[in-house]
Amino acid sequence: MYALDLEVIFGRHWLFCATEAEIPEPGDFVTVEVGSTSVIIVRDDDEGVSALLNVCRHRGSRIVDDPCGAVGNFVCPYHQWTYRTDGSLIFAESSQPGFDRSAFGLRRVPVRSLAGLVFVCLSDEPPVDFDEVAGVLEPYLAPYRLAGLKVAHQTDLMEAGNWKLVMENNRECLHCDAGHPELTSAYFPFIQYSPEDVTPRLRALYERFLQAESRLASAGAAAGIPSGSHRELDGRASGYMIRHFPLDGDGASFGMGGKPISRKLVGEITDPAFGDMSLHFQPNSWFHFCSDHAVVFRALPVAPDRTLVRTTWLVHADAVEGVDYDVDTLTEVWKATNDEDRGFVERQQRGVSDPGYLPGPYATVEDDVESFVTWYIQRMQYHFGGGRDHLGLVPRAAAQ
Amino acid sequence: MYALDLEVIFGRHWLFCATEAEIPEPGDFVTVEVGSTSVIIVRDDDEGVSALLNVCRHRGSRIVDDPCGAVGNFVCPYHQWTYRTDGSLIFAESSQPGFDRSAFGLRRVPVRSLAGLVFVCLSDEPPVDFDEVAGVLEPYLAPYRLAGLKVAHQTDLMEAGNWKLVMENNRECLHCDAGHPELTSAYFPFIQYSPEDVTPRLRALYERFLQAESRLASAGAAAGIPSGSHRELDGRASGYMIRHFPLDGDGASFGMGGKPISRKLVGEITDPAFGDMSLHFQPNSWFHFCSDHAVVFRALPVAPDRTLVRTTWLVHADAVEGVDYDVDTLTEVWKATNDEDRGFVERQQRGVSDPGYLPGPYATVEDDVESFVTWYIQRMQYHFGGGRDHLGLVPRAAAQ
Amino acid sequence: MYALDLEVIFGRHWLFCATEAEIPEPGDFVTVEVGSTSVIIVRDDDEGVSALLNVCRHRGSRIVDDPCGAVGNFVCPYHQWTYRTDGSLIFAESSQPGFDRSAFGLRRVPVRSLAGLVFVCLSDEPPVDFDEVAGVLEPYLAPYRLAGLKVAHQTDLMEAGNWKLVMENNRECLHCDAGHPELTSAYFPFIQYSPEDVTPRLRALYERFLQAESRLASAGAAAGIPSGSHRELDGRASGYMIRHFPLDGDGASFGMGGKPISRKLVGEITDPAFGDMSLHFQPNSWFHFCSDHAVVFRALPVAPDRTLVRTTWLVHADAVEGVDYDVDTLTEVWKATNDEDRGFVERQQRGVSDPGYLPGPYATVEDDVESFVTWYIQRMQYHFGGGRDHLGLVPRAAAQ
Repeated sequence: MYALDLEVIFGRHWLFCATEAEIPEPGDFVTVEVGSTSVIIVRDDDEGVSALLNVCRHRGSRIVDDPCGAVGNFVCPYHQWTYRTDGSLIFAESSQPGFDRSAFGLRRVPVRSLAGLVFVCLSDEPPVDFDEVAGVLEPYLAPYRLAGLKVAHQTDLMEAGNWKLVMENNRECLHCDAGHPELTSAYFPFIQYSPEDVTPRLRALYERFLQAESRLASAGAAAGIPSGSHRELDGRASGYMIRHFPLDGDGASFGMGGKPISRKLVGEITDPAFGDMSLHFQPNSWFHFCSDHAVVFRALPVAPDRTLVRTTWLVHADAVEGVDYDVDTLTEVWKATNDEDRGFVERQQRGVSDPGYLPGPYATVEDDVESFVTWYIQRMQYHFGGGRDHLGLVPRAAAQ
Repeated sequence: MYALDLEVIFGRHWLFCATEAEIPEPGDFVTVEVGSTSVIIVRDDDEGVSALLNVCRHRGSRIVDDPCGAVGNFVCPYHQWTYRTDGSLIFAESSQPGFDRSAFGLRRVPVRSLAGLVFVCLSDEPPVDFDEVAGVLEPYLAPYRLAGLKVAHQTDLMEAGNWKLVMENNRECLHCDAGHPELTSAYFPFIQYSPEDVTPRLRALYERFLQAESRLASAGAAAGIPSGSHRELDGRASGYMIRHFPLDGDGASFGMGGKPISRKLVGEITDPAFGDMSLHFQPNSWFHFCSDHAVVFRALPVAPDRTLVRTTWLVHADAVEGVDYDVDTLTEVWKATNDEDRGFVERQQRGVSDPGYLPGPYATVEDDVESFVTWYIQRMQYHFGGGRDHLGLVPRAAAQ
Repeated sequence: MYALDLEVIFGRHWLFCATEAEIPEPGDFVTVEVGSTSVIIVRDDDEGVSALLNVCRHRGSRIVDDPCGAVGNFVCPYHQWTYRTDGSLIFAESSQPGFDRSAFGLRRVPVRSLAGLVFVCLSDEPPVDFDEVAGVLEPYLAPYRLAGLKVAHQTDLMEAGNWKLVMENNRECLHCDAGHPELTSAYFPFIQYSPEDVTPRLRALYERFLQAESRLASAGAAAGIPSGSHRELDGRASGYMIRHFPLDGDGASFGMGGKPISRKLVGEITDPAFGDMSLHFQPNSWFHFCSDHAVVFRALPVAPDRTLVRTTWLVHADAVEGVDYDVDTLTEVWKATNDEDRGFVERQQRGVSDPGYLPGPYATVEDDVESFVTWYIQRMQYHFGGGRDHLGLVPRAAAQ
C-alpha cells in the first residue's frame, strides 16, 4: 500500500512543496524528497520557478545533496556534467561521437505557483483541475502577497506514523479541546461543527465564536475577500477547502490567547484582527494565513510508518527579528500543537497496526476525516480504472 | 514463518504473560506486547483479572502507553472515549444518532490464572486442554501461594535470535557444564539424563544428585506435594513438564552455591532445602519455585531475529529489601545465566541463518529440545488441518 | 536482485578474500562474511590454506566470532564439539549410539592461492578457468613474493551503496581528475584512455605519462616481468585485467606525489621506480603492487544498499614500523581516495534509486565499466541457462 500511495497519490497529484519566499533570487533552490524521488525547485535565470529531477543524466548521481542553497549552474559532483538552472546540459566530458547534449537535460517536473505557494506534480499528466481550483483560491490569498514574504522559521518534525494518519489528525478538531491547550487559547475548535453538535459545556464558547465570525465577515468584505467558504475536499483530484475563521481571545493571530506575533502586517491587510484564512489541500498540506504572518504545513511520507511534517512561518519581508517579532513567540503555539499531534498520530499508528483493531464510527464532527478517506478511495478507483505510468516525465530537450 | 508463528503459535495458544503479584489492587494493570498486538491485563473492579485489547474502538488509538500502572477507568488520550476496567464503554463525545455504546467496549481476551500465573490466549477459541493441565499442576504449585507474593525485581533482556532458539536453549542443559558456571554452583545439570548418559567425569556429581533427589522426595511428601514428575511436552496443545529437582551445595535456593537468598519462606513451605520445583510450559515460558522465592521467565518474539525475555523474581509479601533479601544476591545467578544464554542464542542465530547450515543430530540428553520441535510441528499440522481465524475475539458487549 | 547476486555472483565465482600474509602460522585464521555465509580461512597443520564453513555440525552455532585469531583446534562454544584445523570432528559429547564422527566434519569450501592471494568459491563446482587465468597472472605477480610479506595496516569502510556501484566506480578514472586530488598526485588518470581521448587540458600530463610508460617498460623487462597487458574483463567466469602502469611525480609509489612509502623493497624488485602493477579481478577485487608495498582491495555486499570495502597494505616482512615506514604516510593516499569514492557511490546509490532515473550514455573512457556490466549479464545468462544449486558444498568426510 505504501508503494501504491507513492505511485498514485504522491506520483499523480499536485503536491504543495515549498513557498516562493524560500527562493527569492535566481539560482536559489530547495530540494524536496518524495519517497525515493528528489526534486530541485529553483528560481531560474528568467526569475520563474523550475522543478528538475535531482538525477544526473550520465550515470545517475544525485546532483545536489543540500536541502537548499544557491548556484550559478548545477554541476554533478561525480563527472562534472553541468546544467543550467533550467535543466539544459552545457558540459559533458569525453562524450562519445554523435552525443547530442540537447537530449540530456535534467528531466523537468510540472510545477505551478498558486499565489506564491509552489505545487509540483511528479507525472507529466497532472490533474487538469488545478487551474479551476486556483481560480477559486487566488482571490482569497492574493491580499496576503505571499510571494513577497520572508521565511522567519522552518521546522521538520518526523512522526512515527503513516502519512494518512497525519492527515486525518489534521482534518478534525474533536481532539483539540483536551489535546491542544496552547492552540485552543487562540483557536475556536469548531471545525465542521453545526449548532446541534455543540455540547452544553461548549455553549458559551460557541456563542463567542458566532459573534467573532460575524465581525470577521465584515472585515473580510471591507478588504475585498470573497464571502463564504469553499469546500470540495472530495469529488475532484485537487481537493481543497478554504474558510475564513475568526480567532479567540485577542482575535489577532496565533500568539497564545490570540495575540499578535509580528508588528508588520502582511500584504494589503490593514485590520490586525483579521482572523485565520484556513486552507486545506489534498493530499498533504494545510495553511493558516493571518494579518501578521502565515504558517504553512507539508506532510511527506518517508516510510510506511514515518512521515516528515515541515512547518514554515512567513512574515513581512521588512520585519526584523528581535524588533518586530521573535521566533519563540512566533512559533510557540504551532510547535506545541505539532508535537501534541505527533503523539496522537504515533499512538494511533501502533493501535491500527494491531491485528485486533476494528475501525469504529466517526463522530458527527469528523466529516473532513471522512472526506479525506473518500478522496483517497476515489483517487485509487480512478487509477485502477485506467491511469498512466508513474514519472512519465519529459526530458528537458523534448519538452522545449 | 515469523508471521505464521505469530498467527498459529502465539495467536492460538495459552501464553504465560504475567503474575497476579504484579496487579494486586483493582485498577492495577500491565500491558503485554505479542507481535503487534497489545493486551492490557488488569485487576478489575470485581478483583478478578481481565484481559483487554489495548485499542480504542473509535479510531484505533492505543489506550495505554505505559508498561504498567493503575487507573480508575481507561480514557483514550485521543478523543476521550472512556472505558471501565472490564472494558465497557461509558463515554463517547459527539457520537452519531443511534450510536450504541454497549456495542463498542474494548475487545476482551480470554484469560486464566493458574495458581497466580496469568495466561492469555489471543484466540476466542483457546485450547480446551488448559483445565486438565491446570488440574495436574495446581497441587504442585498451590503450597507456594504465588498470588500473594510480591515482585522483588524484573528484567527485560533483548536477545538477537529467533524465539525458537531461545526456547531450545532453555530445554537442555548439555551446555550448562561449560557454559553456566554460576548456575551449576547450585543446579545439577542433569535435565533429561538417564544413568547411562553420565560420563565418568560427571559420575561423582551424579551420585550427589541421586542422594539429594532422594532426600527431596521425602521433604516433598511431608509437604503434601504430589510425588513424581509429569512430562507432556508434546502431544497436546498446552504442553508442559513439572518436576521437583534437588539443588546442589547448600541445596536451598538459587544463591551461588545453592545458598538461600531471602529470609522469609514463601506460602506453606517450611523446609528451607526444598529444592527447585521446575515448570516448563509450551510455547514460551519456564519457572523455578524455591522455598524462599520464585523466578519466572517469559519469551516473546519481537522480530524474526529478536526475542524479549522477561524475568521476574517473587518473594514473600512481607520480605523487606535490604533486611530479608537484597536484589543483587537474589538475582545474581539467573542474571548471569540469562546473559550467557543470550550469547549462545545469538551465535546460533547467525549460524542457522547461514545458507551452508545443515541440521545435525541431537545428543542423548537433548530430548526436551526434540519435544519442543515436535510440539511446534504438531501445532502447525493441526492448524493447517483446519484452524480458525486469528484474533476472532468477541467485543465486550457481545461477550456479556 | 540482491539475493540473486549473492547466489549467482558471490555464490559461484572465485572471490578474493584474504592474503596469505594474514595467516602466516598454523592455526592462524581470518573469517570472511559473504552475505549470511561465514567462512574460516585457516593455515592448517600441514601449512596449507583451508577454507571451512563457520557453522557447527551439531546445532548450527557459529564456531568463531572473531574476525581473526589463532587456534589449536576449533571448539564450538555451545556444546564443545571440537574440530581440527582441517575441519575433521574429534570430539562430541553424549552422542547417540552409532554416531559417526567422520561424517560430521566442518564443511569444506574450495580455496586457491594465486601468488599469495587467497580466493574462495562458495560452490563445489567453481569456475574451471581459474588455473588458466592464474597461469597468465603468476609471472606478473611472482617477483613481488606476496605470501612472504606482512600486513602493515587494514581498514574496513562501509559504503551506503550497492556493491555493483562500488565496482563501477573502481573501473573508471574519469572522476579522478576532479575527485581524487591525493591520488592524482601520484596516479596518471589515463585508465582506458586512447590518444584521441586526451583533451587539450590533459595533453602535457599525457606526454609525461607516455615517457614514464616507456621507461617502465624497460624496467619491467629487466626484472623479467612479461611485456604488455592482459585484459579479459568479460567473456570468461574469472574476468581480470593486469597492466603495469607508471606513476607520476617521483614515480616510486603511492605516497603523495609518487614518493616511496617504505624503505624495504619487496620480493625480487630492485628498481624503486617500478610503477604500479595493477590487477582487476571480477567480481569484487582490485590490487596495486609497487616496489615497496602492495595494497589490495575487496568489496563484499552487506545489504542491497551497503557494501564493505576492506583495504590491506602489505610491506616487506622485515620492514619496521616507525623506522622503515609509518602507517599514516603509507595509507594517506588510498584512505583519502576510498573515502572520496564512498561519497561518489553513496550519491549515485540515491540517484539510481530514484524512480525518475534513466540510464545515460558512457563516456569514451568508461569501457571497463561497460565490461563489468557485460560480465555481470553474461554470468546471469550462464546461470539461467543451467546453473547448479548454491552451496552444494561437500562435508569434510565425504570430501576425503
